[in-house]
Amino acid sequence: MASAEKHITLLHGGGGVYMHRLIKDYILPRIGKHRRAVELPLEALADSAVMDGIVFTTDSYTVKPIFFPGGDIGRLSVAGTVNDLCVMGAEPLALSCSLIIEEGLSFEILGKVLDSMKTTAEEAEVDIITGDTKVVERGKLDGLVINTAGIGRRSPLLDHNLERVRRSGRSLSSRWLTASNIRDGDKIIVSGPIGEHALAIMIARGELGLQAPSIGSDTAPLNRLMEDALRAGGVVAAKDPTRGGLASLLNEWSERTGLGMIIHESRIPVSDQVKTASEILGIDPLELANEGKLVLATAPEAAENVLNALRSNKLGRDAEIIGEFTKEFDSVVVETEIGGLRYLPMPLGDPVPRIC
Amino acid sequence: MASAEKHITLLHGGGGVYMHRLIKDYILPRIGKHRRAVELPLEALADSAVMDGIVFTTDSYTVKPIFFPGGDIGRLSVAGTVNDLCVMGAEPLALSCSLIIEEGLSFEILGKVLDSMKTTAEEAEVDIITGDTKVVERGKLDGLVINTAGIGRRSPLLDHNLERVRRSGRSLSSRWLTASNIRDGDKIIVSGPIGEHALAIMIARGELGLQAPSIGSDTAPLNRLMEDALRAGGVVAAKDPTRGGLASLLNEWSERTGLGMIIHESRIPVSDQVKTASEILGIDPLELANEGKLVLATAPEAAENVLNALRSNKLGRDAEIIGEFTKEFDSVVVETEIGGLRYLPMPLGDPVPRIC
Repeated sequence: MASAEKHITLLHGGGGVYMHRLIKDYILPRIGKHRRAVELPLEALADSAVMDGIVFTTDSYTVKPIFFPGGDIGRLSVAGTVNDLCVMGAEPLALSCSLIIEEGLSFEILGKVLDSMKTTAEEAEVDIITGDTKVVERGKLDGLVINTAGIGRRSPLLDHNLERVRRSGRSLSSRWLTASNIRDGDKIIVSGPIGEHALAIMIARGELGLQAPSIGSDTAPLNRLMEDALRAGGVVAAKDPTRGGLASLLNEWSERTGLGMIIHESRIPVSDQVKTASEILGIDPLELANEGKLVLATAPEAAENVLNALRSNKLGRDAEIIGEFTKEFDSVVVETEIGGLRYLPMPLGDPVPRIC
Repeated sequence: MASAEKHITLLHGGGGVYMHRLIKDYILPRIGKHRRAVELPLEALADSAVMDGIVFTTDSYTVKPIFFPGGDIGRLSVAGTVNDLCVMGAEPLALSCSLIIEEGLSFEILGKVLDSMKTTAEEAEVDIITGDTKVVERGKLDGLVINTAGIGRRSPLLDHNLERVRRSGRSLSSRWLTASNIRDGDKIIVSGPIGEHALAIMIARGELGLQAPSIGSDTAPLNRLMEDALRAGGVVAAKDPTRGGLASLLNEWSERTGLGMIIHESRIPVSDQVKTASEILGIDPLELANEGKLVLATAPEAAENVLNALRSNKLGRDAEIIGEFTKEFDSVVVETEIGGLRYLPMPLGDPVPRIC
């Protein structure tokens, strides 16, 4: 890190420049080397690792407040980890549930959160098979933190999906859905309207003096939607735009591939409510976290098929092809609604902490 | 829970009666049912779950202070999860690392903790292959919390070990090292002196006005020690005596098996320093958490062999056979050093919170 940075700040958890630098320059050099063969190791910085046929991921959920319109920490902790598995092309099998509880939390609240975890796990058809419970003194934690780790197996649909890419004579760098598979001309699809999760949280905090009861979080497990896309075939990379939103995800893909991209702003699905609230707050919806959206890179000829497959699922009914990779740029370029071009940088961090 | 209990207390995280009740009566009925076949599910309450050939476990580490004589939160977070895998008879493969950091933590401290995780992972020969980083606002967390989940595979030595049990004509209830395999007459072995971890933490907190610089935590990955025991053969169940100590572990085994046991106090390895400090504090060393000890149940005829195998490893050089299961009692009975008998109850919780 730069010598001026001696302490962790909230930006380091924000999914943008600071977080990526912390992970790449500080954490990876310390713990990233491995002894055994790891098919997708920590340094691949994918949503999950792959080792010995096991897809493995982890996420701690510190969202505040723990209940918000459209979800709660329980639903989030199951959906978020299921999504990290399925965007790799894995079928999620099971989750762990590690509860860190502040002394004084009511059983009623704990029960609601656990019930929500269960409901969401049933929706995703995964089992919660192992757990841990810790309690810390009052005042030493903010209510409740949940960690879920997840294990999964390679989905048979992933091979079917990649076979469609190969049939067009194209070779693939990875047998998983990582950025290394992306080529010039590949299309970028977003599965639905962006920005809802982050705004729902911000409004629920009541700090903004903003009322927009129609904005609810999109938190949802996406494994069935992902399967629909894989069944259509031609997906080469996938990710979910959580902290740092679409802006962070697209910049990561640009960095990894060395390619630029052109994104057509008019095609990015955003609800009127999110648009209005973002304008009032002076926030770019492209930087807002989502918890129920997929971003897919597909072979050019497969894009329409994948789009239709997504739209056939209610979680993807507003999916759009928002742009394509291009050698003509070396960064993320947005064509604005009035036809101008703007550079979309990697955000520094999330506009708000404790979003997930 | 009893109707009087409306809120979570520190006792619910203490590894004793309250924690077991919280998990069995409150958490399991909510999230414990599963859809797929799970070989060792959540309700087995083993140290790890087993599904589809994958051994899977999780643990969040909230220890305070994060550096203590004999270890730190980094070493603890790797050793603790490795130990939960290996006591099942699994070979640990890989860990996840989820950091929850309080804003303001220095990079220097974070670096030390990560270096310690790496050193301990190398000692245990496991890789850290996936991770997550969250930052919460100053005052909303106490420094640093780490969750590690772990995955492992069935150790080939486990089959070798169980084969030795079967060769004596005995059938086994489980092909993993769970309490269900235990029979009347089986011997109980502890791999070394107890109580060091909990006392090292208590002394490091400086709250006790107690100075005992020679007590250091025993935190250590035990997978190689466990392999030595399995190579000897005849182990039927294993666990590590963490929160709630030996008292909690033995009571759990008694409940699961419906058998009592007789423990010979004179044979329990305890250092003079731990004995003295416990007496001053009025604490039973049997209730103190350990982070580098194994408790094994073995077939009677195999006990001496396993004991010698443990003693050949420096982590097990002070191992002892401390007692045996018996139908004559229906609970844990301790024969005191002066020859009397005392009933050893399940502790209510740990004498101190935030021990791990």
